[in-house]
Amino acid sequence: MEKLGDIGEHEAIRRLVAGLGSHADLAVGAGDDCAVCRLPGTGLDQVFTTDPIIENIHFQPLEKPERIGNKAAGRVLSDLAAMGARPQWLLVNVVAPPEQDFQTLEKIYAGMNALCHRFGAMIIGGDLAQGPCLELHVFGTGTLPAGSALLRSGAMPGDGIFVTGPLGCSREGKHLDFVPRVEEGIFLRESGLVNAMMDISDGLATDLPHILKRSGTGAVLDAESVPRNGTLEQALFDGEDFELLFTVPAEKQEALGKLWRKRFGTELPRIGTVAPAGEGLRLRMPDGQLLPLEKKAYEHFRQG
Amino acid sequence: MEKLGDIGEHEAIRRLVAGLGSHADLAVGAGDDCAVCRLPGTGLDQVFTTDPIIENIHFQPLEKPERIGNKAAGRVLSDLAAMGARPQWLLVNVVAPPEQDFQTLEKIYAGMNALCHRFGAMIIGGDLAQGPCLELHVFGTGTLPAGSALLRSGAMPGDGIFVTGPLGCSREGKHLDFVPRVEEGIFLRESGLVNAMMDISDGLATDLPHILKRSGTGAVLDAESVPRNGTLEQALFDGEDFELLFTVPAEKQEALGKLWRKRFGTELPRIGTVAPAGEGLRLRMPDGQLLPLEKKAYEHFRQG
Repeated sequence: MEKLGDIGEHEAIRRLVAGLGSHADLAVGAGDDCAVCRLPGTGLDQVFTTDPIIENIHFQPLEKPERIGNKAAGRVLSDLAAMGARPQWLLVNVVAPPEQDFQTLEKIYAGMNALCHRFGAMIIGGDLAQGPCLELHVFGTGTLPAGSALLRSGAMPGDGIFVTGPLGCSREGKHLDFVPRVEEGIFLRESGLVNAMMDISDGLATDLPHILKRSGTGAVLDAESVPRNGTLEQALFDGEDFELLFTVPAEKQEALGKLWRKRFGTELPRIGTVAPAGEGLRLRMPDGQLLPLEKKAYEHFRQG
Repeated sequence: MEKLGDIGEHEAIRRLVAGLGSHADLAVGAGDDCAVCRLPGTGLDQVFTTDPIIENIHFQPLEKPERIGNKAAGRVLSDLAAMGARPQWLLVNVVAPPEQDFQTLEKIYAGMNALCHRFGAMIIGGDLAQGPCLELHVFGTGTLPAGSALLRSGAMPGDGIFVTGPLGCSREGKHLDFVPRVEEGIFLRESGLVNAMMDISDGLATDLPHILKRSGTGAVLDAESVPRNGTLEQALFDGEDFELLFTVPAEKQEALGKLWRKRFGTELPRIGTVAPAGEGLRLRMPDGQLLPLEKKAYEHFRQG
């Protein structure tokens, strides 16, 4: 018998989606932040994603319920943002024990609604079922012009690597209070200057390899350039930053930087460079040394 | 403090969706089998639904995993069928403990995939998370011509009430092995002869009142006409039948019966008549007596 805990989340998902098949209207299947489907006749694609948050794993029972709601909806909105999509509809499955305080649920919904309305999205349905602990399963859709979704697979050697904000120490509060980078994601997609994009949920050192693997590239990260809260190690490994991570061809970086400053009034931090495939993921230390960056991620199920 | 178990599933959902707001492209919000949204420029509407199944509540741990998968996908396909929609995309969140046998998960997916492919639908994404017991949260979409969704709210006094098949005793196996009435739902919607429709998940006596409430009507059920496996009580209250329940104006019943026989080779059982609002839901016994039909449903959370 093979246990889920021995296989690990990513390998289990890889094996489960292997048998799903294909479809003429499915442009991008499982493996990116969202699935991308054609909406024939509209000139649009529709993107789909889903994310669970579970008591004692993604939040603590005594957490402020509006913040739990913000996180539940925010994770899904962040996945939509990672494609450059405009958020559309959300559905929510709630699992809870019979002794669940109902006012807490109402406040969780208030938190989800507030974030949805901020980005023109809306909760349109869902279900409520009995179970051993509080869980929220949020499903979301968004739209964008056909063929314009920013995928993990588009990075090219020589691209600069960028993030939309500082990384690390999210457990001090940001993992519940973050604002998903919806406006930034749409802006970056509309700029036409970005090759690949995803959002950082498991930490830079764990998530960047997803772009590298799907793009068939390596990368060098500049230790000194990574914007961070706390230490470099925290910026690389903490996770739940929900910033966007993306790559831009060298000749387009100046143009993007200008547009970004004009729109958001900040500098766009370049944190590294995409490298050819064979070179893996390395970290350039302040003394110029290149160290292989090891994966040390929080992965569901995998123990030790 | 108000506990979820004191409020009950339906009232809790009613209160939670009260604050969701409205949207120009949202034709039908929470409260029907699916939400219905406009797909501008396509002449189509898109419908959305979600359903959880949870270990020890909706299935037993030692159940054949392909059957668990059939039920997980089938409940969502049945909701889509209840609108008359053509199934499109599904996403699945799996919650499981680390000791979960992985081959069981693969077989659950095989069961979901087999049913999806049968109806032209496809699983395109989802997530996997750690939790105390096995759960499957399935989200589904479908499409139909704009404005043609069959709602719970369309029943008119005088309509005949029909079901697509026998009711009751589903716990003997049908609750896991059922085939969602996707083809029948599309056929009934395309006929243009149906006023209101839903699927039976909680039992005829519990679900018909949803149509009556949203349509502002009452009804009389003919005890002798309800097609059933087992006793009349089982047919009324067991639930998990996943047959379609629908109403048809008197002058259209002959035409529909003919079309139905031609397409499916069976008689369409008429089980009652929609009545004016004040009359409630009553059961006509074989001796002609009219008895009020009491709600005695399995409702999540509500104890006693």
